[in-house]
Amino acid sequence: MAKKLFDYQLDEPVEGFFLLKDSEVRIAKNGKKFLAINFQDISGEISGKFWDASDQDVENFQAGRIIHLKGKRETYQGNPQIKIQQMRLTHAGEPQEVQQFVEHAPLNTQTMEDEVNQFVFAITEPNWNRIVRHLLTKFHADFFSYPAAKKNHHAFAGGLAYHTLSILKLAKSVADEYPHVNRPLLYAGAILHDMGKTIEMSGPVSTTYTLAGNLVGHIVLIDEQIVEACQQLKIDEQSESVLILRHMILAHHGLLEYGSPVRPHIMEAEILHDLDELDASIQMMQTSIGHAEPGTYTERIFAMDGRNFYRPTHDQTKGDLDGHASQD
Amino acid sequence: MAKKLFDYQLDEPVEGFFLLKDSEVRIAKNGKKFLAINFQDISGEISGKFWDASDQDVENFQAGRIIHLKGKRETYQGNPQIKIQQMRLTHAGEPQEVQQFVEHAPLNTQTMEDEVNQFVFAITEPNWNRIVRHLLTKFHADFFSYPAAKKNHHAFAGGLAYHTLSILKLAKSVADEYPHVNRPLLYAGAILHDMGKTIEMSGPVSTTYTLAGNLVGHIVLIDEQIVEACQQLKIDEQSESVLILRHMILAHHGLLEYGSPVRPHIMEAEILHDLDELDASIQMMQTSIGHAEPGTYTERIFAMDGRNFYRPTHDQTKGDLDGHASQD
Amino acid sequence: MAKKLFDYQLDEPVEGFFLLKDSEVRIAKNGKKFLAINFQDISGEISGKFWDASDQDVENFQAGRIIHLKGKRETYQGNPQIKIQQMRLTHAGEPQEVQQFVEHAPLNTQTMEDEVNQFVFAITEPNWNRIVRHLLTKFHADFFSYPAAKKNHHAFAGGLAYHTLSILKLAKSVADEYPHVNRPLLYAGAILHDMGKTIEMSGPVSTTYTLAGNLVGHIVLIDEQIVEACQQLKIDEQSESVLILRHMILAHHGLLEYGSPVRPHIMEAEILHDLDELDASIQMMQTSIGHAEPGTYTERIFAMDGRNFYRPTHDQTKGDLDGHASQD
Amino acid sequence: MAKKLFDYQLDEPVEGFFLLKDSEVRIAKNGKKFLAINFQDISGEISGKFWDASDQDVENFQAGRIIHLKGKRETYQGNPQIKIQQMRLTHAGEPQEVQQFVEHAPLNTQTMEDEVNQFVFAITEPNWNRIVRHLLTKFHADFFSYPAAKKNHHAFAGGLAYHTLSILKLAKSVADEYPHVNRPLLYAGAILHDMGKTIEMSGPVSTTYTLAGNLVGHIVLIDEQIVEACQQLKIDEQSESVLILRHMILAHHGLLEYGSPVRPHIMEAEILHDLDELDASIQMMQTSIGHAEPGTYTERIFAMDGRNFYRPTHDQTKGDLDGHASQD
Amino acid sequence: MAKKLFDYQLDEPVEGFFLLKDSEVRIAKNGKKFLAINFQDISGEISGKFWDASDQDVENFQAGRIIHLKGKRETYQGNPQIKIQQMRLTHAGEPQEVQQFVEHAPLNTQTMEDEVNQFVFAITEPNWNRIVRHLLTKFHADFFSYPAAKKNHHAFAGGLAYHTLSILKLAKSVADEYPHVNRPLLYAGAILHDMGKTIEMSGPVSTTYTLAGNLVGHIVLIDEQIVEACQQLKIDEQSESVLILRHMILAHHGLLEYGSPVRPHIMEAEILHDLDELDASIQMMQTSIGHAEPGTYTERIFAMDGRNFYRPTHDQTKGDLDGHASQD
Amino acid sequence: MAKKLFDYQLDEPVEGFFLLKDSEVRIAKNGKKFLAINFQDISGEISGKFWDASDQDVENFQAGRIIHLKGKRETYQGNPQIKIQQMRLTHAGEPQEVQQFVEHAPLNTQTMEDEVNQFVFAITEPNWNRIVRHLLTKFHADFFSYPAAKKNHHAFAGGLAYHTLSILKLAKSVADEYPHVNRPLLYAGAILHDMGKTIEMSGPVSTTYTLAGNLVGHIVLIDEQIVEACQQLKIDEQSESVLILRHMILAHHGLLEYGSPVRPHIMEAEILHDLDELDASIQMMQTSIGHAEPGTYTERIFAMDGRNFYRPTHDQTKGDLDGHASQD
Repeated sequence: MAKKLFDYQLDEPVEGFFLLKDSEVRIAKNGKKFLAINFQDISGEISGKFWDASDQDVENFQAGRIIHLKGKRETYQGNPQIKIQQMRLTHAGEPQEVQQFVEHAPLNTQTMEDEVNQFVFAITEPNWNRIVRHLLTKFHADFFSYPAAKKNHHAFAGGLAYHTLSILKLAKSVADEYPHVNRPLLYAGAILHDMGKTIEMSGPVSTTYTLAGNLVGHIVLIDEQIVEACQQLKIDEQSESVLILRHMILAHHGLLEYGSPVRPHIMEAEILHDLDELDASIQMMQTSIGHAEPGTYTERIFAMDGRNFYRPTHDQTKGDLDGHASQD
Repeated sequence: MAKKLFDYQLDEPVEGFFLLKDSEVRIAKNGKKFLAINFQDISGEISGKFWDASDQDVENFQAGRIIHLKGKRETYQGNPQIKIQQMRLTHAGEPQEVQQFVEHAPLNTQTMEDEVNQFVFAITEPNWNRIVRHLLTKFHADFFSYPAAKKNHHAFAGGLAYHTLSILKLAKSVADEYPHVNRPLLYAGAILHDMGKTIEMSGPVSTTYTLAGNLVGHIVLIDEQIVEACQQLKIDEQSESVLILRHMILAHHGLLEYGSPVRPHIMEAEILHDLDELDASIQMMQTSIGHAEPGTYTERIFAMDGRNFYRPTHDQTKGDLDGHASQD
Repeated sequence: MAKKLFDYQLDEPVEGFFLLKDSEVRIAKNGKKFLAINFQDISGEISGKFWDASDQDVENFQAGRIIHLKGKRETYQGNPQIKIQQMRLTHAGEPQEVQQFVEHAPLNTQTMEDEVNQFVFAITEPNWNRIVRHLLTKFHADFFSYPAAKKNHHAFAGGLAYHTLSILKLAKSVADEYPHVNRPLLYAGAILHDMGKTIEMSGPVSTTYTLAGNLVGHIVLIDEQIVEACQQLKIDEQSESVLILRHMILAHHGLLEYGSPVRPHIMEAEILHDLDELDASIQMMQTSIGHAEPGTYTERIFAMDGRNFYRPTHDQTKGDLDGHASQD
Repeated sequence: MAKKLFDYQLDEPVEGFFLLKDSEVRIAKNGKKFLAINFQDISGEISGKFWDASDQDVENFQAGRIIHLKGKRETYQGNPQIKIQQMRLTHAGEPQEVQQFVEHAPLNTQTMEDEVNQFVFAITEPNWNRIVRHLLTKFHADFFSYPAAKKNHHAFAGGLAYHTLSILKLAKSVADEYPHVNRPLLYAGAILHDMGKTIEMSGPVSTTYTLAGNLVGHIVLIDEQIVEACQQLKIDEQSESVLILRHMILAHHGLLEYGSPVRPHIMEAEILHDLDELDASIQMMQTSIGHAEPGTYTERIFAMDGRNFYRPTHDQTKGDLDGHASQD
Repeated sequence: MAKKLFDYQLDEPVEGFFLLKDSEVRIAKNGKKFLAINFQDISGEISGKFWDASDQDVENFQAGRIIHLKGKRETYQGNPQIKIQQMRLTHAGEPQEVQQFVEHAPLNTQTMEDEVNQFVFAITEPNWNRIVRHLLTKFHADFFSYPAAKKNHHAFAGGLAYHTLSILKLAKSVADEYPHVNRPLLYAGAILHDMGKTIEMSGPVSTTYTLAGNLVGHIVLIDEQIVEACQQLKIDEQSESVLILRHMILAHHGLLEYGSPVRPHIMEAEILHDLDELDASIQMMQTSIGHAEPGTYTERIFAMDGRNFYRPTHDQTKGDLDGHASQD
Repeated sequence: MAKKLFDYQLDEPVEGFFLLKDSEVRIAKNGKKFLAINFQDISGEISGKFWDASDQDVENFQAGRIIHLKGKRETYQGNPQIKIQQMRLTHAGEPQEVQQFVEHAPLNTQTMEDEVNQFVFAITEPNWNRIVRHLLTKFHADFFSYPAAKKNHHAFAGGLAYHTLSILKLAKSVADEYPHVNRPLLYAGAILHDMGKTIEMSGPVSTTYTLAGNLVGHIVLIDEQIVEACQQLKIDEQSESVLILRHMILAHHGLLEYGSPVRPHIMEAEILHDLDELDASIQMMQTSIGHAEPGTYTERIFAMDGRNFYRPTHDQTKGDLDGHASQD
């Protein structure tokens, strides 16, 4: 099988098919145009510059196109980059499907959907069960295809559902260990907590924030959906069970300064917040460690206070670590 | 006219009718019951202790009753208190109406309603106008009778509408001075910004927070009402004008750590936040200064970082300052 | 079975045997002595005052004694208290064993030891395994009898081992879900992380901090024990595996301001920190919720930023919630 | 009338007269000199680079010169810039006056002076009135020509007086609405609050901070002037009225961390601080929004915590918004 | 020699002459008056309550009187207190001089004056020398009799000069060790840095803050004096040497949030700030440790972040430590 | 004597021998290699770029080589840089010793050793004396050759011992002035406080952090050495005197957020922290001021909150200020 972008060592020649994730026209100091490109395949992204771009080049090499590249893996200011030697569009018979180059969740959609449904079955409180089913149906396609964030953790297609599922599995362990935890409430909150991101973000590819995302935010956007669901399902939106469910979502960022309008005042809301952070942290650390050699440090992770992490020399699991696509 | 509670000087004999705002039964160190009382009239509240309370006294002197008091104005740990000498329930022909003893807004309800309506006329954007009218109608009674807060600023009957009206007047001045300000947006946001407090709080008297208030909060509670109003008025809730109006309310606490789920990203939302704080500050300072003698400092105001304020010796306006009831 | 302290409702007569957890002689305002007492049984602690104490009373009713009490369950400034009517020392044939009145871990020592040992088997890295066994043996008695803290979470006999075991179970769930987690490292770190508390604190009863605890702290105290263990076991203390294990312990408070001299820079150290906080939070919330009635709020939990938590009305599990002694 | 800098659209050819606000000689990577220029007219500033500058070019194109430019409006890393095609000095008969190109207050000096004087009349306290007149006379020329700041808000000629006047108008509204506000005190404080900037800064053009500005700061610099004024006017500088006036100036930054040596402890000092911030914020937002297209976000405003602001699509007032020069 | 207040052990009978530092009339729960007293001698202060005070007692036992006391040294809520058994005014022939009971600087005024003068000689820069002499003369009496603060460090008569002198001695050591330090500047700044406290505070006894102290603050108050001194001494107040000297004083609190309007931007200003804090800290620690037994902790020191300090068991210097009066 | 790097003025031709401190190969925008170089001599470091580097150039001009340079002193974005005109390796007979170009402590090793020993003599407590001697012997070579930090203060060969010695001298002054300070404890703590840096850092040249440095940190690393020393010297490591000494080291960063696992709770630990900061600050200010012209500001000092410092015009000591090499 063809080498992936992150399989190439420093100074090694690179040859293969890649997706142009970004391709921006800029003016060089000599007055000529060049393209600032991010090459992508399922192992991640690396940047490169295409110098002295003709108008035809600008036309050909737009973001979203798949190209064939010859070049070299170099380093620029500590970050990997590709020195481009030759680049052309693909021919018939060569790879044409963007999906093959985009990182996506390590589980396929059907598997994730089946697993989420198992958790829905366990939501035995009828109001919560109906609201969750209603909104899962309403946002079905986006929920299973969106990333969980523009960058940072789970920033890949299907990342939202995958992140939700990871939290649900942690939630199950917690509910098994601490029997006083309200299992249906924790599951219902976990499934809905980030669903507002399907309204906050523009889509799974070239993700930007919508105006509603910027002015209202995903927390309030999904809260409003719960209220609407109650109206359509004839559930009293002022009932304690609905208020508690809404609180799960509203409080899940844990601190006001992280954007929750209220802090957790229900035990399960506090637990949901903790598990959300735990899964996001592990996901970010695993991704970064997968890109570092044993015995070295990862790059600094912005969303973890800029810390870098040491990959011990005895840790030989790299092949697995970046294998989000391993089961494809 | 009878002297008010705050008219009595230190060590002066007190005699008059007062409302028992709070009256709590406690056990003294000698094992006997006593009542910890807050006496109230429109000039404010002062505490006192009724020692050796019999079961009949406990029965008689409950919160909400109006009593006749003989006593002395003393000081306990720097705060004024009343030493109770004699206390009895009122007779027929003596004051019986709680309203006479409760601090309330310096404007009567009809006046406030008329003035608010003048501002509604100036909301020329049709969606905003319809939403504001709809919610003003829906919450009419509570909006004009609730306090703006449990304590701190405008913690009196009618305080919510009075605070709203003060902001509207400041908003008018700002819109007159800075012509690029969107006047209809600023007015609509000002009228709605704290209306959720009618859901967050239990009522104008003996105010507590409701479960919805604690778990959801007044910001999101009124946001949800805007969304419902759109549905009933057939206004597209995803339209830019609605998103902007919702942003006005969601962002009006200014900072995430003050409970807004988003910071202001619309000029008028920033202005609304500033005017909200300005009016609350002036109201708190005026109340405290009204209780201090010229040439002395007020007590520390908790909600203004615990600062106290100096009342200059040349400031002889005390009579006016605490006269919320002046037009009665 | 006899009623427990927290089974009595407000104003209900109280009669039974209790431990005097604290009993402090003070001078009342009338110049006479009184005893400020904390009564304890396995359901928790409630305070009371014994007025007009004679010298014989002071002699009799010292902390650590078991007494028979007649009184009434009252409330003082929002907290439960006991009004003492009659109090005497126990006679022969009445309860004499302090252990019966002291809250302790819901698992007995042998069970906890067996379960911890299962996790030790899974520490397949030989250095870590030997160090953990060495220190578990060295601190065996204290590790299984100490509380995890003076107050806040797991402040009961056996709390240290119970807290450790809860984290180990969470750690197992995490290692099962995220296969790149180094399971032996996470288990070894979890077992050792708070073991220094056996040096930091004076003992399981009437716990105070030792001088070493105050001047050095439990994090560095156990780090020093790891270094000593290496010397005795002829393990190179500068080897990467030892440095990583030490880092697990040194970094487990997560932030410098919480007393860790380094922040986590190993993935498993970050996870250990997160699970430590998660278990402590759940334990504190469960305890407080167990003391609140359904449909009311708990008291504020100091170690969780002073937040209180709402116990939903549909939560009828109180009997279980405070039943740490349920299996005895 | 000729197009202004901010009237040109992306990729539109630019031709016209502009001021060289900055022109810095740098060395390009090819070893040749180039000029890093900021072009200015009354609509604002845009940067550009003059490549391969000869010694004659360096000599000609110095900061402060007016030039004729042919070029193109481009974008560089999200900010507008001018690609220079041809540039020459102006000839006789072409614009020569720097004042025509410099942004300045939207009111002319005489108007501002007249309006300020109206407020001085209303300062009925004799000490304050005499001090204000004395210092207005002493710093007259600078007060009406200086900017209010080096950058951020009101960073244009006459900005100091214009900012002062805006605050005075807001102050009038507040004093009208809240009758207990001491109007003369608020006006006197507003006029003097930033007058120290005439000592702190070097002048209206190419503004830098003076040594006194850096080592003492404008707050203390004007406080010292009040003290000197008292000595010359034979006013007792220890009188309460002088202490209160000084407090207005010393406290006007509101928080110690913003450089006030005392926090506001007089109601009018708190109000002055609030109005100062309100006017500065509105001014910054208006300027940024005037440079953004409807339906887009402004650049981030550093002095407002780096927030950007959304200009609604229905806001068609751009022409007015950047028209500081509109009445000229 | 008679025992001092802090020489008495817990439960030891107390008999001797003491000053009534404070004596406040309060009403007990039984309705009778009592006096809340602070007894003082040169070893410190301890509180006590005088129950059932008659009008004659209130008249006799006012603050400032010297009394003869019989009582017992007890503890109340962890703090030492005196149980009063008998108390009477002093007779002829018994101690009458308040000075004997007031803590004061361990050096007498003449010694401090001589030592300060030695440092003045070393201020070789003529402007600084003249300004320092001028202000030392102007504030001579107060400078050598005032405390350095109302509470916290050096809160005793002569404390201001003593604190200044301690800093000067540290400054000499620093200037000896780091030859690039400007010695005259450091000395001049040290002498003047807190001199404004003679204006900020009401006097050496029963110290309160003046209005000027509250509204302007000691930093700006002495800065103003430097400016006035320049005018009287015909020194150019805008000269660099004067600006630098003023900066020394203005910046000496180190951080804006501690009340300096500017942070140190001159090396000697930074050093002055550091030495000011160092001397204050050592003084506070020495005082507290002097009141603690070897092998115990001090009370928490509010101005040092509430930390307490351990007095090692081998530290047998207590007699010396609290001996501010040792030379009397 | 030859001019030093910092002796050259702007635009002055540079010619002389320098050390290549760093030399990094990078790719220019034209695709050719260049070297990003830091030139060093004992006056400091200045950067420069060597364009169009051949493979032979890359081979020749590696970090650690001494070269002969012809060029010009220029400025790039406000920082000094060297424009390289000609560069060659040194010939026989020209300077070859790296030591001549490296900044080092102003005292030679023998002098520092003698002076430190004088302080060791004054450590009269036998345990402390033996521990200090033991560790001084063990880490002798590194202690006298390492820098005190990678950058910031004392970042030169011998800086660790020089910094230690400066603190010891300040400590002597403090102990002389405040007789209750425990002199032996303060000296012992000062000598050991940063000795862990010899384990934390890789060495005196091209300093990096070791794995132990990153995962454990210098504070805990030297604490562990004290414990080991106790074991070898048969000193009871749980004795109060050892706990106190360890506390001196553990607490010397003063605040938890600066990496101390405990805050100072011993007077001498607080003093050690203060003197450590004082010496580091003065050292940083002196170095920066030595690089600035009189009448100008230094560059911003990162470790002093980014402040810059003004070098007064009357300060003519520059020659001395940067003369770390003055006694060579």
